[in-house]
Amino acid sequence: MPTTRPSIYLDYNASAPLLPEARAAMMEALEIDANPSSVHRAGRAAKAAIQKARRSVATLAGAKPDHVVFTSGATEAAATLLTPHYSFGRSPLTFSKLYVCAADHPCTLAGGRFEEGDVVFLPVGGDGILDCEFLESALASHDKGAGLPLVAVHWANNETGVVQPIGKIAHRVKAHGGVLVVDAVQAIGRIPIDISDGCGDFLILSSHKIGGPKGAGALVAHSDLMMPLPLISGGGQERGHRSGTEAVANIAGFGAAADVAERDLEAFAEVAGLRGEIETAVREIAPDAVIHGENVPRLPNTVFFTIPGLKAETVQIAFDLAGVALSSGSACSSGKVGRSHVLKAMGRDTEEGGIRVSIGPSTTTAEIAEFSGRLREIAARARPDKTLERA
Amino acid sequence: MPTTRPSIYLDYNASAPLLPEARAAMMEALEIDANPSSVHRAGRAAKAAIQKARRSVATLAGAKPDHVVFTSGATEAAATLLTPHYSFGRSPLTFSKLYVCAADHPCTLAGGRFEEGDVVFLPVGGDGILDCEFLESALASHDKGAGLPLVAVHWANNETGVVQPIGKIAHRVKAHGGVLVVDAVQAIGRIPIDISDGCGDFLILSSHKIGGPKGAGALVAHSDLMMPLPLISGGGQERGHRSGTEAVANIAGFGAAADVAERDLEAFAEVAGLRGEIETAVREIAPDAVIHGENVPRLPNTVFFTIPGLKAETVQIAFDLAGVALSSGSACSSGKVGRSHVLKAMGRDTEEGGIRVSIGPSTTTAEIAEFSGRLREIAARARPDKTLERA
Repeated sequence: MPTTRPSIYLDYNASAPLLPEARAAMMEALEIDANPSSVHRAGRAAKAAIQKARRSVATLAGAKPDHVVFTSGATEAAATLLTPHYSFGRSPLTFSKLYVCAADHPCTLAGGRFEEGDVVFLPVGGDGILDCEFLESALASHDKGAGLPLVAVHWANNETGVVQPIGKIAHRVKAHGGVLVVDAVQAIGRIPIDISDGCGDFLILSSHKIGGPKGAGALVAHSDLMMPLPLISGGGQERGHRSGTEAVANIAGFGAAADVAERDLEAFAEVAGLRGEIETAVREIAPDAVIHGENVPRLPNTVFFTIPGLKAETVQIAFDLAGVALSSGSACSSGKVGRSHVLKAMGRDTEEGGIRVSIGPSTTTAEIAEFSGRLREIAARARPDKTLERA
Repeated sequence: MPTTRPSIYLDYNASAPLLPEARAAMMEALEIDANPSSVHRAGRAAKAAIQKARRSVATLAGAKPDHVVFTSGATEAAATLLTPHYSFGRSPLTFSKLYVCAADHPCTLAGGRFEEGDVVFLPVGGDGILDCEFLESALASHDKGAGLPLVAVHWANNETGVVQPIGKIAHRVKAHGGVLVVDAVQAIGRIPIDISDGCGDFLILSSHKIGGPKGAGALVAHSDLMMPLPLISGGGQERGHRSGTEAVANIAGFGAAADVAERDLEAFAEVAGLRGEIETAVREIAPDAVIHGENVPRLPNTVFFTIPGLKAETVQIAFDLAGVALSSGSACSSGKVGRSHVLKAMGRDTEEGGIRVSIGPSTTTAEIAEFSGRLREIAARARPDKTLERA
C-alpha cells in the first residue's frame, strides 16, 4: 500500500507501527462475537481476553492487575484522573487545585474536570526539566483547608524526549500530602517503570505509542483505595471505574504490545545508538543546530532540533515528499501545525520551530543514513552559505 | 475456535458478530502506521479513513458528516450529551434538569454530568412505551427560569425491542422548548432513521450493535450550532468536540458496517419472519408465556419472554451448555446477572426474569428450529406438567 506506508517512518512518538504480536492478538479477539459482559461462554472468552491484557499491562507498569483501568486512550485516562473528586475507601476526597507542568501534553494541560481558575501551571527550565523549586514553594503555600493538591507531570516529553526526575518529584509531592498523576505515555516500554517504586500515585498509558492499536489506554493506580470518581458511568464495567462495552480487540492488542515492550526493554535502550547517529549528522550538517534538552536525560529514541534559518514545517514537507514521515512539533492537535508549546515553555520558541525525529527498535542504520542525506540536501538548499559540503 | 464461537449466536442486541466488510476495513486501516493528526502523507491517509467512515455513518443517520462526532462507544456519547452545559453558537446554554426514560439503558440512566437531584425518571407503561402524558405534564411544569429541559429516551429497547414513538416525543419536547437526546443504539440499521426528519436533536450510536467492532460509537447532531461542552479535552480532535487519538481501525470498521446497514435495511425487516417463528414456538411450548411488548411496535429481531416457573438464568445456562448464546436480561453490566430494570419499569418484574433472543440477517431457520427444540426440552424438564408434547 504505497500511498499510506511511507518508505521511512521516523514518527514513533506520534504513533508507533502496529507490532505483529499486537495484530495477531487483535485477530484472535475479533473472532469473539460476544459482549464481554455476557455471561455465556463467548462472553466469558471476551472477558478472558481483557483480563489477559490487564495482566500484561500491569506487569509492564509494576502494578497489580486490579489496579489497571482500561480506557479508550491516554486522553480519556487524563480526563478521568484530573478531577477534584476522588473517593478514598468509602469517603469522598477533594482536591482544590491542579498543578500541571507547562510542558505537558495537551490532554493534561486541558485540566480535566478542574475549573480553569483552579489550574496552576508549573514552569520548566531551558532544558525542559520541571522547576522543582517552584513546585516546592507552590505546594508549601497550598491551602490544604480547601482541599489537597493534585499534581500532573509527564514522565518523558513527547517532543523533546526529556525525562523528568519523577522519583524526586514524587517525593516532594508526597511530602506535602499531595497526589501525583504521571503521564507515562512516552516513557512506558522505553525506560524502566515500576509504579510500586515511588514514582507517583497514578500512571497514564497509551497503547499506540508502544506498538498496540490506536483506541486503547489505561490509568494505572498505585492502590485502588483512592480512585477518581468515574468520568463515564453506565453498565459498571472496569469495576465501576469506567463504563462502556470494552474495545476488546484493541485491549488485546495493547496487552500483546505490553508483553513485547516488557521483553524488549533492554533492546529499546540500544536505540540510543541510532539517536547518536542522527545527532552527529545534524551537527555536521548544521554546526549551529540546537538539540533541545541535549544535556539532560532523554528517551533513547527522540531527537528534537532546530536549525537556524530552516523552518521545521518546510523540512517536514520536504521529507514527506521524499516518503519520510517525521514531525514538526507534536501530532496531537487535529491536523494543525502550531507553534510548539513545549519550546515555548522552555523559553526556546523560535520562528523556525523544531524538527522531531522519533524512532524505534525496527529503525535501521540505512534509514538514518537516508534521513541524513536528505537533511543535508534540504539544508544546503535553504541555507547554502551555512551548510558544509560532505567531507 | 470452538471455545469462543458458539454454534448458535442469538445475542445480537448484546453485540452483533463482526461483518466481513467491517473486518476488511479494519485490516486496511491497521496498515496505516501514522497518527491521524500527523500532517504527513501517512497521517493524512489515517485521517481520510476516518472521514470516509464519517460520511458512511452520517448517511445511515440522515445527518451531515460534520455533525457526526466519533467516540469510544455509545456510553461515552451518552456521558458527553447528558450535561447541563452546552454551547449555542458562541453563547452558553444551560439545562437545569434531565428527564430520562426509566426503561433506558444504564448509560443514559446514569445521568451523565447532571447532579443526581436534577434527574427525573419518566415512567413507561406495561407495554414499555413511554408515558407521554407524564412527559407532557413534567415539561409543562418545568421551570425554564433555571434552565431548559433536556430529555433522553431510547428509540428501541435493548431488552424488549419495543420501539418508542420518537416522532411524537420529539414533537412534544420541541413544543416545550426542550432538547431531545435519542439513544438509537438498538434502532439504527434495523429501522429507518433520519435525524433531519423530526426525531430529536441528537442521536447516540454504537458500532458493535450493527456489526462493526466494539470500541467505536458516535453522537450525531441535528445541527452543530448547539453542542455539549466536551467531556474529553486535549488535542482538539473531532473539531474540538472529543479529544484523543482516534481509534482509526474501529472507526473504519464502524463506517463499513454502516454502509452494510444502509444497504440491507430492507433485508433486516425480513428478520421479523424468524422472530415470528420464535414466538410461535414459545407459545406452543408454553401457552402461558408472556412476550413482553407484544402488542406495540418492536424491532424485527428481538423477542423477550417470560415463562412462568422457568427461571431465565437457568434457561440461559442450559442454552450455554448446548452452545447457544442468548441472554437473560441485558449484557450491559459487568458480568452480573441482575433483575431487569426494564421489566421493573414496565411493572412486569417477576422472579423468573426474561429470556432475550436477538437475531440478525445471518440467523437461519435451522438455528431457530434448534433453539425451539432445546427450549422444549428445557421447559419440559422444568415444568413437566405444563409443557405440551410436540404434536
